[in-house]
Amino acid sequence: MQASIAISSAPNVQYVLRLADSCLILAQRLGEWCGHAPALEEDIALTNMALDLIGQSRALFTRAGQLEGQGRDEDQLAFLRDERDYLNLTLVELPNSLRGARTGRGDFAFTVLRNLVMATLLKQLWQRLLSSSDAELAAIAGKALKESRYHQQHAADWVVRLGDGTEESSRRMQDALNLMWPYVAEMFENDAVDDAAVASGLGPRWADVQEDWLSEVNSVMTSAGLAIPKPSAFRSTGKIGRHSEHMGFILAEMQHLQRAYPGGVW
Amino acid sequence: MQASIAISSAPNVQYVLRLADSCLILAQRLGEWCGHAPALEEDIALTNMALDLIGQSRALFTRAGQLEGQGRDEDQLAFLRDERDYLNLTLVELPNSLRGARTGRGDFAFTVLRNLVMATLLKQLWQRLLSSSDAELAAIAGKALKESRYHQQHAADWVVRLGDGTEESSRRMQDALNLMWPYVAEMFENDAVDDAAVASGLGPRWADVQEDWLSEVNSVMTSAGLAIPKPSAFRSTGKIGRHSEHMGFILAEMQHLQRAYPGGVW
Repeated sequence: MQASIAISSAPNVQYVLRLADSCLILAQRLGEWCGHAPALEEDIALTNMALDLIGQSRALFTRAGQLEGQGRDEDQLAFLRDERDYLNLTLVELPNSLRGARTGRGDFAFTVLRNLVMATLLKQLWQRLLSSSDAELAAIAGKALKESRYHQQHAADWVVRLGDGTEESSRRMQDALNLMWPYVAEMFENDAVDDAAVASGLGPRWADVQEDWLSEVNSVMTSAGLAIPKPSAFRSTGKIGRHSEHMGFILAEMQHLQRAYPGGVW
Repeated sequence: MQASIAISSAPNVQYVLRLADSCLILAQRLGEWCGHAPALEEDIALTNMALDLIGQSRALFTRAGQLEGQGRDEDQLAFLRDERDYLNLTLVELPNSLRGARTGRGDFAFTVLRNLVMATLLKQLWQRLLSSSDAELAAIAGKALKESRYHQQHAADWVVRLGDGTEESSRRMQDALNLMWPYVAEMFENDAVDDAAVASGLGPRWADVQEDWLSEVNSVMTSAGLAIPKPSAFRSTGKIGRHSEHMGFILAEMQHLQRAYPGGVW
């Protein structure tokens, strides 16, 4: 077995890794729909979204490796860290169905709602990263922005169609929204890594992102006839490396081949 | 639960469904790699291949529905049949690892070898279907041919790289090839459906396809230093609807949502 690597505590590296990890882990969850979506067209759409996110994470891992300056490549950063060194939002590691996760069958309501809030976040973030002081990060944002716009539109269409659908579909959507909502607060939590990013011009202030995010999400929820739940005191902590019980299973699946056969397939 | 549909016994419908099902089920198996490939780049490549195959199957299901004339759409044909009415080659339904299928972890050797023989088959078939008497099928072939060419090249690169790699990788490849080979004979088995296709100009003679297929596969195996196993008397029978024990599990996963919530996600 290949040993784990320790990651740099430099705030710019951590900042880029947080974003890379959120893209990568959300892609894992979307990839689980490949072959199991309710229609062939949707199968293709969700899988394409997963591919876009893996592509974004690859570019970000490569940049994080350059900023770190240890000569590590995208695959080493993607696959060879311990759980505490993954810095994704807890939201993206949650199973596709928060209820009945053990059946292995996804909840489409939860999936499209998570896609909506994440795509809206990423779109708002990429827009601001176009003017990042890191020209490489700005270039990644330029390509990713177009993809996130499409992901947001696709997710919003589903949220409205199902939220404003039958009584049954509306109930399922509201249930999923209630379960999901406590996890969105983490997106806008601010710490030393974020402060350093604002100070160096690497990234935007979360409070600014939050304002535009909430406005866009609110507008979709209104069209869908869904009520945004009241804020709760709960804070998830994935971006500082403290994960839910689901993260270990994702990493076990994801890392198996890379760790067993370092640097390749064998 | 939505009831199953019975499919037409018309040979042209069965001919197109055989091809559609082989594309769809191979896509399911490739999709299982999404998020679990040994490197991010390969993750993307295998998932893209799955997407191409799902796209091909969609077009074929639509055409099969038109030929059948019962007004069934691609999703009904893809999801609402009983196991005995799926007509894919047994080869494509085999798990990604023939040994240790229960671990849920794929064997990359088996995967790239199956991709090579299937992409070579499809490429040879699409080339001939360009001149099918069915203009719609010819149009589908025109688009798919380019994709299969790329799939074949990608798979061949891996087969040579691993077959002609280390002692360990070469041994794993030969093992996987020995396990897989008995299932390739079914590709070229001929029955009344194929005879009708040849007679109507819908599709080519399998003996002709086999000749070119074997020549191309042989050439890759020679470069890879792999020995093609001796023919065996065993014949798999997926294309006449008699499947391996693995098919039921694929269908259970694939059909769940469509059957539980007919015509959509709910």
